[in-house]
Order: sequence, then C-alpha cells, then structure tokens
Amino acid sequence: MGRWQPDSRGRLYEAALDLFERQGFDQTTAAQIAAQAGVTERTFFRQFSDKREVLFGGSAVLGARLVAAVLDAPPDDPPLAAVARGLAAAVAMIGASRKDFVRRRQAVIEANPELRERDRSKMADYAAAIGAALETRGVTRLPADLAAQMGVAVFRVAFALWTAEDDRDLATIVRDAFAELRVVTDADLEDLFLAPPSPD
Amino acid sequence: MGRWQPDSRGRLYEAALDLFERQGFDQTTAAQIAAQAGVTERTFFRQFSDKREVLFGGSAVLGARLVAAVLDAPPDDPPLAAVARGLAAAVAMIGASRKDFVRRRQAVIEANPELRERDRSKMADYAAAIGAALETRGVTRLPADLAAQMGVAVFRVAFALWTAEDDRDLATIVRDAFAELRVVTDADLEDLFLAPPSPD
Repeated sequence: MGRWQPDSRGRLYEAALDLFERQGFDQTTAAQIAAQAGVTERTFFRQFSDKREVLFGGSAVLGARLVAAVLDAPPDDPPLAAVARGLAAAVAMIGASRKDFVRRRQAVIEANPELRERDRSKMADYAAAIGAALETRGVTRLPADLAAQMGVAVFRVAFALWTAEDDRDLATIVRDAFAELRVVTDADLEDLFLAPPSPD
Repeated sequence: MGRWQPDSRGRLYEAALDLFERQGFDQTTAAQIAAQAGVTERTFFRQFSDKREVLFGGSAVLGARLVAAVLDAPPDDPPLAAVARGLAAAVAMIGASRKDFVRRRQAVIEANPELRERDRSKMADYAAAIGAALETRGVTRLPADLAAQMGVAVFRVAFALWTAEDDRDLATIVRDAFAELRVVTDADLEDLFLAPPSPD
C-alpha cells in the first residue's frame, strides 16, 4: 500500500504515451500499458482510475493550484492581476514537467476527437472556476467572467505556441501574450461597434 | 419537394422545444416531434438531419455570418474591431429570433451534459474560425488568436447575461462587455507577473 511510487507511475506514464502514439488511444488498454511498464495491472489501477486519467490526472491538480493562487492574490489586485498570479502558478507547475512529455501528451490529445473535447471542456472548467474565485474576491460577474476568460485564452494561446514550435520558455510566452492582449484590446471600438440595436 | 417551409419548420422547432423541456432531450424522438407538430416524420427529416440539428442547425449559419463579417471588415480595422463587426452580425441574427425561444433552447442545452459539450465545442470552433479569418487578413498568429478568443469570450459572457436575466438588448450588453474588457485588461501586470522563469 505504497503512498507514492514515482518510479512505477513514471514508467506507466511513459509506456502509456508510447502506446497511445504507436497504436492510438482507443486501441490501447490498461493491461497493455501495465505490461509495457513491467508492472501488474493492479499497480496501474493503484495509480490511475483508467487510461484517460494518465493524460488528465494532472489537470485537476493544475486547476486547483491555479484557483488557489487566484484566491491568495493580494486583496487589492485587480481581477486580471489575480488571474495572472494563477497562471504563474500553473506555468511553474508545467515548467517542472519534461517538455517532450508535455508535447507528446498534447499530440495524443489532438489526434483523438474525444480527448480533444475533454481538453476543451477542461479549459471551460478552469474558466468557470477562476470566475467563481474572482467573485469570491468581491469582483462582480461581468469583469470576473471576462478576466477569467482572458486568462484562459492567454493560457491556451501561449501553451499552443509553446508546444508547437516556440523555443522560449512558457512563462516568457505567457508574459508576452498578456502584453499583446493589452495591445489587442486597445483598439478603439466606439465608432465601429455597434449599429443601433434592431427593435425587437 | 418544397424548398422552404417556414410553417412546418417553425412548428417542428416549437414542438421539439416543448418535448425537450417536458421529457428531456434524450427521451424525445424525431417521430414524437413530428407527431406533436402535426407533420409526417418525412417532413421532419426534410427540415433537420436529426433532433440535435433542431438545436444546433442555426449555429453553422451564425458562425458563417460571423466569419464573413470579419473577413469583410475594412482592411485597416485592427483585429479586435474586425471581430467586433463579426459579433455585431451575429447579434443582429440572434436579435431577429424570439428571445423566449433562445432562452428555452439554452435551458435545454444546459440541462444535458452532451449538449453542453456540443455548445462549448461550437464556441471553440467559432474562435478557431475567427482566428483563421484574421490570419487571412494578414494578422499574425498571436494577436489573431487572442482577438478571436476575446471576441468569443465577450460573446459568451454577454449571451449568458442576456439569457439569464438581463432586460437590455444583446447588442447593448455586448458593447458594455467590450468596454469592460478594456477596463479589465488595463490592469498593470508588469510587476505582478511573472516570477523569473524556472530553469528547465
């Protein structure tokens, strides 16, 4: 009843990625992963509830750290600053992982429609949790939701750039994306948007 | 082989909403919808490929109009302004619908996990399509993706407020959300974000 088995967990993770890449996620079983990692199936299920959790088990932890950092931000932080602190916590956690693993994991997810859905859904859950955390901090709903969505958008875009090609570290890309966000939102929309509302 | 049957289509839509609300989406069949609308099942399938399309058939049209308006924006529009024009087109289209129907449709979607997923997925598709349209306009990837995500975020937040409670029209809420977006992104993150990147 070992509490933490870094070795078997790591081996299982690597074996799973390898099998998902070679034969596809749907075609891979927990038994095959365990066999390739040289452990019993029972050991697999002590570490992961199913093969999907090999890919998404870290997401809940990441989300929890992100939200905790938002809640712990200094009380006078404006909403987006609190969100940025949350992202910094998430980025630090991801930065501690091996980039080749993060990349391979993401490629496995992108290759499978169901996993892609799950990944999108996870992002929407993060946004909802961040919005709720900001409301707990006393931010009203509109700015809370917007800041949460901005944060997740910055994260998605930066993460995609980082995994796809970018050699800079993730923290730098996130910081640049926040800077770019300010440029983008600085557009003057007063005259452009909107025609007078249609009577209805 | 009628080309456009506003009456049967409208009756089918109303019958479907009513059945989805009373007995749930999963429990409702195309045959039941047709019967309640007083048309044949064949007529149902001339209008909709399946019961899901009753709810999501309009989304493809909405997405296409949105993207067309982004592409048609004046060449010197900054990215977010082009996106705002796209949203204005979408808002005009939604504004032409009966709000009670939009609201009931949304409640049906929120009540069903699979439909919720589909709805989220649709939003992600809109963001991807808007980003691609901006890149077609010569915007580089980072600002294109960010502006696209901002636009979808503004739309989601405004639409949720509008369906949930807000008595103002959707165009006004969207305009206010864009204004709030500028306030939110005006936070100075320089000193807050980020700690020096961890060496990895």
